[in-house]
Amino acid sequence: MRVLGVDPGLRNLGWGVIDVEGSRICHVANGVCRSVGQDLPERLLSLHQQLTEVFSKFLPETAAVEQTFVNKDGAGTLKLGQARGIALLVPAQFGLSVGEYAPNTIKKTVVGVGHADKSQIAHMVRVQLPGVDLAGPDAADALAIAICHAHHARSAGMLARAVRRASA
Amino acid sequence: MRVLGVDPGLRNLGWGVIDVEGSRICHVANGVCRSVGQDLPERLLSLHQQLTEVFSKFLPETAAVEQTFVNKDGAGTLKLGQARGIALLVPAQFGLSVGEYAPNTIKKTVVGVGHADKSQIAHMVRVQLPGVDLAGPDAADALAIAICHAHHARSAGMLARAVRRASA
Repeated sequence: MRVLGVDPGLRNLGWGVIDVEGSRICHVANGVCRSVGQDLPERLLSLHQQLTEVFSKFLPETAAVEQTFVNKDGAGTLKLGQARGIALLVPAQFGLSVGEYAPNTIKKTVVGVGHADKSQIAHMVRVQLPGVDLAGPDAADALAIAICHAHHARSAGMLARAVRRASA
Repeated sequence: MRVLGVDPGLRNLGWGVIDVEGSRICHVANGVCRSVGQDLPERLLSLHQQLTEVFSKFLPETAAVEQTFVNKDGAGTLKLGQARGIALLVPAQFGLSVGEYAPNTIKKTVVGVGHADKSQIAHMVRVQLPGVDLAGPDAADALAIAICHAHHARSAGMLARAVRRASA
């Protein structure tokens, strides 16, 4: 199963692709879409075009996007929301289901604790995907989101099989 | 000049189209896109598809979107931001410039005061576009946004001509 994770942001939108087979995961690609343009509509268009290219190139079977942290900075939340709208639209346009995970869930799954910082995440992503060349912290976060989605999808699958066995 | 105004919202996204010729404006169409779907990505996809159809059908030359009011409700701001991302993306995909106006600017332009309520806006939209059949308050707001954009574009044009005359 090929998983694409997205760390949404208006300036830098991180993405990461992994392949999952049973308990094995391996790195496919990672990168950052940087919004370019004079104004907000152009920047959103630029993100949409770049992310669409990533989906077209790597053809993931499922996607996951970080749940945005809502804080007291309303203007910042709005900007992030606009970028997140694009990050959720693109996989839907490819007919994919989209997993959404809170930052703490992602950190707990990848690092083991919910309060890990960016460097710890990048370190654990490197441990789990040996030889990976990270395009930056946003790309590392996106790979962490993909790894988190793979773990949760696997657990959900194992649970479903156990329930089937128990009821057989 | 054909102007399309959008009042962004995740549940109901209002739109309105007017034609502008000098100081004359006339109504073309208005409506509401309602997001349908199981989850947020599907709902954003549904809004994107419906709004794309509206742009394809009416082929506006310019568009305007209401500037979102950022309040203390972070979750609400995020939802609106995601819908607004779609509302800004679609005109950019059609290569159009997008005017953005604060709610108070729209109200002052259309009603004459910055603190008008929804019913006053609908009333003044009906006065300025005689015979219009409004699809709802969100569609009325969208027509008000289009009217505001037409006024500001006209003023900008008159100013530019005055400057050219003065410097000639």
